[in-house]
Amino acid sequence: MERNIKFTIRFKGTDYHGWQLQENADTVQAQMMRAIKKITGENVKLHGCSRTDSGVHANMFCCNARINKDIDCQKLMRGLNAVLGDDIGVYGCSVVPDGFHSRFDCVGKEYIYRIWNSECKNPFIKDTVLQYPYKLDEKMLDRQAAYFVGTHDFSAFCSSGTDVENKVRTIYSCNVKRDGELVTVTVSGDGFLYNMVRIIVGTLLDIQSGKIPEDSVPEIIASRDRNRSGVTAKADGLHLNKVYYDPKEVL
Amino acid sequence: MERNIKFTIRFKGTDYHGWQLQENADTVQAQMMRAIKKITGENVKLHGCSRTDSGVHANMFCCNARINKDIDCQKLMRGLNAVLGDDIGVYGCSVVPDGFHSRFDCVGKEYIYRIWNSECKNPFIKDTVLQYPYKLDEKMLDRQAAYFVGTHDFSAFCSSGTDVENKVRTIYSCNVKRDGELVTVTVSGDGFLYNMVRIIVGTLLDIQSGKIPEDSVPEIIASRDRNRSGVTAKADGLHLNKVYYDPKEVL
Repeated sequence: MERNIKFTIRFKGTDYHGWQLQENADTVQAQMMRAIKKITGENVKLHGCSRTDSGVHANMFCCNARINKDIDCQKLMRGLNAVLGDDIGVYGCSVVPDGFHSRFDCVGKEYIYRIWNSECKNPFIKDTVLQYPYKLDEKMLDRQAAYFVGTHDFSAFCSSGTDVENKVRTIYSCNVKRDGELVTVTVSGDGFLYNMVRIIVGTLLDIQSGKIPEDSVPEIIASRDRNRSGVTAKADGLHLNKVYYDPKEVL
Repeated sequence: MERNIKFTIRFKGTDYHGWQLQENADTVQAQMMRAIKKITGENVKLHGCSRTDSGVHANMFCCNARINKDIDCQKLMRGLNAVLGDDIGVYGCSVVPDGFHSRFDCVGKEYIYRIWNSECKNPFIKDTVLQYPYKLDEKMLDRQAAYFVGTHDFSAFCSSGTDVENKVRTIYSCNVKRDGELVTVTVSGDGFLYNMVRIIVGTLLDIQSGKIPEDSVPEIIASRDRNRSGVTAKADGLHLNKVYYDPKEVL
């Protein structure tokens, strides 16, 4: 009997061209579909909660597929972990209502962007941070980050090459915290435009370096002009951290 | 003018055959000496604070060498970081008194051993943990760990193949803590025998699995018999975490 099964996974995105299936490029979706095929014999249609860019990581990413094989979820999860490479791990597997869809039912997401604020390399986190060797005032940046909170047209924080028309999104929280040399920008919201978090972080770094004046985020948002916001911070530091399906979890 | 320079480094040991120089095998010491040669032109004698096994990591490792080249420490550090591979990072570089020796002047060390207590892989820490998929009662293990504290003959916790005669060491603290699925064993002491921390951890895991009875560590220590203690836990989870030169820091 066909069941709708939801998988919760982690992946280190360094060696993948993002989540989404592509011809001639390895992606996390392709790896997951290949693994499901190996364990169930089925060529499934696998729905992900989000696209992700090349090199972006996920501490939590959800996807779902209809599977016919009569296999216990725990066994299916073990099987997938056994056949998947080292950089993708499945840590949740459960039967969900037939109508559940990982993307359409998602009510919010949290991203973190990790900055290693040191001129010295850290070999343990090298692919999962942006190394930033200059002075970084996390308290000032935290005040700037607060300007992103709310419901806004985020056209100024969206890379071109997207076909999304409505660029209004609600950011629930946006903050900057330091733990030693590791500075983390955390952003949660109901949805995100193409490269939105990376442009938010790039804008914060451009404020830090003086290229963009402090307290100008509201103006930049209002301008809806991508030329006014900062650089797109590189993919390595970005992690999809949480995916919400229950509105109660979001706030 | 020759100066005695102390380096503080981090390294991910996965791809190295430990610290110590070896013929026909790549080691961290070899990499550091090659880097120093590139920056200073000098073939230095580099003293490390400790040997380490293949695959063992260090969050803090100290080494020192006499260097003639007139170069600012900050510049020397930057140069080394630029020529070293991604898995070794220098984060401290300073001139120390002429008599300072990284190994002989070391008054204590702290090791951590990280256990990923889950049947699901974590791609972000895969080379730096032991994955342990079974039940792990960190409170019980923490009570067992306390038995290692004190000054004892640790012959039962030393692999053969060592030429050290005096096997008495003082353990200052030994504890087990959980943070979600990550369980960390922390051990500090005035010195450690060959594989000592890995055998301590292996013994704790053998107590967990019931192969070794609870509360038998004092007897095993007293027996001085390596056959009574547990397995040698694999290298991946072991990290040299702190190296002490000031007796005040140790306790």
